[in-house]
Amino acid sequence: MPDLTSTANPRVKHLVRLRTRRHRDAAGVTLIEGHDELALALDAGVCPTEVYWAPDLVRDAALLERTAGARTFSVSREVFARIAYRESPDGWLAVAPAPGRPLDELVLRPDALVLVAEGVEKPGNVGAMLRTAEACGVDAVVVASAERAGTDFANPNVVRASKGTVFAVPVASASTSQVMDWLRRNEIRTFVTTPAGATELGHADLTGPSALIVGTEATGVTTAWLEGADATVVIPMHGTVNSLNASIAAAVVLFEAVRQRTSVS
Amino acid sequence: MPDLTSTANPRVKHLVRLRTRRHRDAAGVTLIEGHDELALALDAGVCPTEVYWAPDLVRDAALLERTAGARTFSVSREVFARIAYRESPDGWLAVAPAPGRPLDELVLRPDALVLVAEGVEKPGNVGAMLRTAEACGVDAVVVASAERAGTDFANPNVVRASKGTVFAVPVASASTSQVMDWLRRNEIRTFVTTPAGATELGHADLTGPSALIVGTEATGVTTAWLEGADATVVIPMHGTVNSLNASIAAAVVLFEAVRQRTSVS
Repeated sequence: MPDLTSTANPRVKHLVRLRTRRHRDAAGVTLIEGHDELALALDAGVCPTEVYWAPDLVRDAALLERTAGARTFSVSREVFARIAYRESPDGWLAVAPAPGRPLDELVLRPDALVLVAEGVEKPGNVGAMLRTAEACGVDAVVVASAERAGTDFANPNVVRASKGTVFAVPVASASTSQVMDWLRRNEIRTFVTTPAGATELGHADLTGPSALIVGTEATGVTTAWLEGADATVVIPMHGTVNSLNASIAAAVVLFEAVRQRTSVS
Repeated sequence: MPDLTSTANPRVKHLVRLRTRRHRDAAGVTLIEGHDELALALDAGVCPTEVYWAPDLVRDAALLERTAGARTFSVSREVFARIAYRESPDGWLAVAPAPGRPLDELVLRPDALVLVAEGVEKPGNVGAMLRTAEACGVDAVVVASAERAGTDFANPNVVRASKGTVFAVPVASASTSQVMDWLRRNEIRTFVTTPAGATELGHADLTGPSALIVGTEATGVTTAWLEGADATVVIPMHGTVNSLNASIAAAVVLFEAVRQRTSVS
């Protein structure tokens, strides 16, 4: 008999509420659904506080050996159908502390490399950027927002699209002016990627402490970034349409920084 | 009164059938839905054969001036709801020749740059690769498939995800052995991207006639590519998870080729 069999259980109702950002923010948690996503989060050192698993659905319960620190509940198939947010649930759902920290708690190396994405909202794009940034060994990924509450790294779709890297790379979210102040205080040079950039990417010296700023596909970065930039950088393009996905643009500048840093050392 | 008001009209039924690949293949056409997508296709020189528009839905009918060569039908809101495949249709749908041509009709410059993607299926990834390849001015994008019928460039979701670049860059789809033969006949060197690559990306000379081969995230390329490769190339990574989206990996190798070719000239 599983621990939880009634969808009327208060714990079940609480989990359903955590699908909305407001309740996640209030609780300071994120939801991790799926065996592989949970395994990746554990690999990255995440300590879930609660783990829900449906014996009727899971193929291999070995993951439970890695979540010993969490309160663990077996649940019925019916309960899992209620708490799952995916279409084909595999019987794993965990509650874990939300990724992200205040800007001033980010630890920066002397030649810091920071990716700043402004206004990026789509979970797929945020996830792809996090994966790329992790592979490039950045010090941090910061999402800056001009007006709104900013990207929600605890959005389960971001967690999934990032393949767990949202837990492996330090992330922060703040207003554009807060991010600019933080970069200035830390003496990090800002390279703003824009089609109207004055410097070709290959000619920008990205070997010192650098923040690479990318905006949205539709509108780019806000003017505050362009006015305050140490350099505006253009990705050289050779087609007629010349339309890059935002996460691709971020990857091109990040890998150029890595290339310069690797060939210098 | 619109030209078409009955969802029982044979033309309407034919359009609905074109949502399936079998019927698109038989007719040799693709569907382009949406004002912006149609505008991009027209920019790329596409000549639609038929244009359907719903006066009740379209905001600006000026696009009709650019589709003078097509048979044009105004349709009722009800008919458009039937023929649209999107959730929020904007009243534009066109039928156009399917993108793609036989391998031997691809035109290659002396220092050709070709992107070969094997096994890539997700429309979002194919679309992002097409956008990147177009921006890099490649000679062609070729999708190779080990077994199955191969990527369907006429899939309306590919058309949309590519932002119309599927019409702006020469594309072909063939079996892996056909693609390998074609590359050999054209004396194009093959650089296979793989985590186990022998050469770091920055040390591979991509300035001559080059095909950059990328596989799927899950399984990479098939062994035939690895055995026949002129070089196996690894993208240097510096994280712990080191997980790149397939379209990001393609972008990193393509932009490295462009960088080498630009700094050489």
